[in-house]
Amino acid sequence: MLRVVVLGAAAGGGIPQWNCGCPVCLAARTRHPELQSTQASIAISADGDHWFLINASPDLRQQLIATPQLHPAPGKLRHSPIAGVILTNGEIDAVAGLLSMREGWPFAIYAHRKVLAILNSNSIFNVLNEKNVRRQPIEVEQTFEPVLPGGSPSGIEILPFAVAGKSAWYLEGKVHPAGADGAGDTLGLRIRDKATGKFFYFLAACADVTDDLKSRLAGAPLVFFDGTVWRDDELILAGLGNKTGQGMGHIAMSGDTGAIAALSGLGIDRKIFLHINNSNPALLHDSAERKIAEQAGWQIPADGTEITL
Amino acid sequence: MLRVVVLGAAAGGGIPQWNCGCPVCLAARTRHPELQSTQASIAISADGDHWFLINASPDLRQQLIATPQLHPAPGKLRHSPIAGVILTNGEIDAVAGLLSMREGWPFAIYAHRKVLAILNSNSIFNVLNEKNVRRQPIEVEQTFEPVLPGGSPSGIEILPFAVAGKSAWYLEGKVHPAGADGAGDTLGLRIRDKATGKFFYFLAACADVTDDLKSRLAGAPLVFFDGTVWRDDELILAGLGNKTGQGMGHIAMSGDTGAIAALSGLGIDRKIFLHINNSNPALLHDSAERKIAEQAGWQIPADGTEITL
Repeated sequence: MLRVVVLGAAAGGGIPQWNCGCPVCLAARTRHPELQSTQASIAISADGDHWFLINASPDLRQQLIATPQLHPAPGKLRHSPIAGVILTNGEIDAVAGLLSMREGWPFAIYAHRKVLAILNSNSIFNVLNEKNVRRQPIEVEQTFEPVLPGGSPSGIEILPFAVAGKSAWYLEGKVHPAGADGAGDTLGLRIRDKATGKFFYFLAACADVTDDLKSRLAGAPLVFFDGTVWRDDELILAGLGNKTGQGMGHIAMSGDTGAIAALSGLGIDRKIFLHINNSNPALLHDSAERKIAEQAGWQIPADGTEITL
Repeated sequence: MLRVVVLGAAAGGGIPQWNCGCPVCLAARTRHPELQSTQASIAISADGDHWFLINASPDLRQQLIATPQLHPAPGKLRHSPIAGVILTNGEIDAVAGLLSMREGWPFAIYAHRKVLAILNSNSIFNVLNEKNVRRQPIEVEQTFEPVLPGGSPSGIEILPFAVAGKSAWYLEGKVHPAGADGAGDTLGLRIRDKATGKFFYFLAACADVTDDLKSRLAGAPLVFFDGTVWRDDELILAGLGNKTGQGMGHIAMSGDTGAIAALSGLGIDRKIFLHINNSNPALLHDSAERKIAEQAGWQIPADGTEITL
């Protein structure tokens, strides 16, 4: 049995974002606290006792407090059910939570060498002593099985694959610590319970749905997919910024080439948007955009949502 | 008028700490949520409209949501009352919150060159584009006045001074990016309202109260002081770790050379502990240690406490 808990569903900055007075952030801060959402991350487990995080958001400390499944076991002075963290990119909203996992609990970080190079070149991550916190490279198109404390297999098989994306924002215009370009900055994951064969896909960042990606996702029982923006130019139109969704490495939900259209008719049982920006009107429960997304079979999850496969 | 808001009072890891099942963390997670506390930081303002943070904790996003004084002004799409951040050291619990201040709002970071060297040598902080976020060196024993957006004076005069401490944990055994040792890793601050002359001291980390420090603090209207541990060896005695308070750069509250004894009889009007570790029994409202601290005139503040001088 594969258990999945949505720790957070929001894009970088969260909802509300510290410096944002847009309609969604304003409502979240005042009369609609149910709109509050922490930055995107999920936790997965095959045995219910040991969990792996997919990405570690800056809100991790609050996400762990809010998630009983991830509390220390009763009767133990120091303990965490978290056995590892799998990183799909090197953006702040995917890695900053590692800084809240200090204090000596042993776990493993699984990431592509391009993302590990970022951690290795930033001394602040040395707060995770490599004696306790192993950094394990993963490769695109090579399955791996994260291990439990002590090294026994977790029963979870993960296949990372490259998707259209970009390097971390803070590396724009800089030399990437892993050297010249190549795949690995942005990964999708197929996550499979070895005992039951049940699986799902996780793509919190994806700039384009190629035919290859469609073939991959066709018939999947569950897909978490990049829901950053409703339309590519919404930040500019709303006066909130000068970046497009594409410029940030994210496909739009709507439009002929958007995620809703691209993933329709693929026989995917359950489709959930993740990494949703505060500018996205589909966040508002009574918006026309929300209705369109829901009628197309998409869900926008609340933090804490648990799914069992 | 000087306004001070305690954004968080806890030491690194917060209360509860993600991997801790000690009595305080367990109680905070279950029947005593009032014990929950975020990592130490305060906000200060001379005009009530513009605020400066002293340190930026990993809990910053949640602290800002919980603090109406720091919400964006009504009617503005993008805005923050925060005009700057003053850093007193380079530990994770003092700097990681900077990563939650991205998204283009202009402000300034004021820090000693030893701490700025850490930010400059960690590319992850480039997410704060230097076009918007100025990094301003400060010197020990030299007053400075942080400025408001546009460059006008804030009315707040700050005097940084060196206190006994240590380099950031993640630099232990490594080469410090600012080169050979010297003062600056751990600062105390005197913060003064230029209009009224009212002032207070902030020392979230301090390993020793020297005679010089006593002379400095004597007669102060308000002192925030390092309250990490009750006794130097409490982490070891409780089975929570192998570090002493001194080994982490922190004086104990209790004992002949502890903070309570050292700061008694100095004519300080109001004494508030900050940076309190979950291992410290003075956190428990009904503990003998709490009574001793309170009877000696010390306060252990709740997050959100506001003080006006």
